[in-house]
Amino acid sequence: MTELLEAAQALRPVDTGLYQEISHFYARHFQTVDSGDVAGWAGGFTTDGVFDSNVLPAPVVGRDTIEAATHRSEAARRTTGVQRRHVQTTLVAEHAGEEIRTRAYVTVLETLPASPTTIYCATLCEDVLVRGADGGLLIRSRMILRDDLR
Amino acid sequence: MTELLEAAQALRPVDTGLYQEISHFYARHFQTVDSGDVAGWAGGFTTDGVFDSNVLPAPVVGRDTIEAATHRSEAARRTTGVQRRHVQTTLVAEHAGEEIRTRAYVTVLETLPASPTTIYCATLCEDVLVRGADGGLLIRSRMILRDDLR
Amino acid sequence: MTELLEAAQALRPVDTGLYQEISHFYARHFQTVDSGDVAGWAGGFTTDGVFDSNVLPAPVVGRDTIEAATHRSEAARRTTGVQRRHVQTTLVAEHAGEEIRTRAYVTVLETLPASPTTIYCATLCEDVLVRGADGGLLIRSRMILRDDLR
Repeated sequence: MTELLEAAQALRPVDTGLYQEISHFYARHFQTVDSGDVAGWAGGFTTDGVFDSNVLPAPVVGRDTIEAATHRSEAARRTTGVQRRHVQTTLVAEHAGEEIRTRAYVTVLETLPASPTTIYCATLCEDVLVRGADGGLLIRSRMILRDDLR
Repeated sequence: MTELLEAAQALRPVDTGLYQEISHFYARHFQTVDSGDVAGWAGGFTTDGVFDSNVLPAPVVGRDTIEAATHRSEAARRTTGVQRRHVQTTLVAEHAGEEIRTRAYVTVLETLPASPTTIYCATLCEDVLVRGADGGLLIRSRMILRDDLR
Repeated sequence: MTELLEAAQALRPVDTGLYQEISHFYARHFQTVDSGDVAGWAGGFTTDGVFDSNVLPAPVVGRDTIEAATHRSEAARRTTGVQRRHVQTTLVAEHAGEEIRTRAYVTVLETLPASPTTIYCATLCEDVLVRGADGGLLIRSRMILRDDLR
């Protein structure tokens, strides 16, 4: 296969059914963490999944480690009574060999009781998705680019 | 049917075509009310539809009552010149027997002429949808949970 | 054909596959301009495309003119270090003869380094889409209605 063909394949957009499946996967994924179900949310990563961000000194590696780190930050947030909403939009999804690569905007809103809602941060979320043993989608790696910390 | 089977059925996600139909239904629904067409928007509820929220002392019952109440609040808002946008995202949709249950984020933006846009509120919108006589989707009940008033 | 039939046809919603294709087209389109690729973004218009807005004294006509005008405004913005995100949601899409008409909310977010994200403007974006020679979607005309400048 020529390099040109490989490059073209790398950019092959997903079809309608898969685009919807991915949209729906993310809607559940973000509603799950916003509802406080950190374990359910972390279950969306592969066991060797990687969570990285331009806020972090190093990537967080492994589902259990991702879950433990998120439990800590969620517990701290919960004491303040803040409600977060991860608002995902503007989703691009492409096949790259066996993987699916996605890029979407995730805007994180925060609301304290009896207070106006504020934008905590605007981000670009770049994921690599794969199929788990049961056929469902899982996140193999995530890179969150916060716009305020470039 | 066992309870386990019933529970599994209760969580059955909608297929691609229905997910798109629901997305499109909501896009029209929220654009309709934001354009000031309260009657058109209220037509999205069943005649016995219920509108509830953690802001309200009691549910509003019946399409006509929902329309009348919304006409009043819209008329008050209109005198201020504010433009609202109901931004719906992060949609989850599932079959529950004959009904469809949806959960989505609806962020309400407000803009006064020559003023910066502000977030009026962030909400979780939980609907029960059914099919009307013409086969179209209708809202049988809605629960709006405002994040600032939990 | 009667006028009634024509009016009904004018409102014919797109099917599931086309709705997804349009959603995906817009996600790429807005990510492209937000990444600074003005030429790539302008390539989403027909060569005789029209860009209009309630901010502009007159429509901008032709892909090259749209690109040149956007290069100028992007260069000015870039000196400030601001990152924009065009967050598109709430998409309605309908066939109108050979054309496709879309109406969506586009909320523009702005973030300066080490600063909170703000809403630059809330808009209604009304496009006419057509098929290019390669079968892909192209914007024949766009009207942006900024809520703060009505």
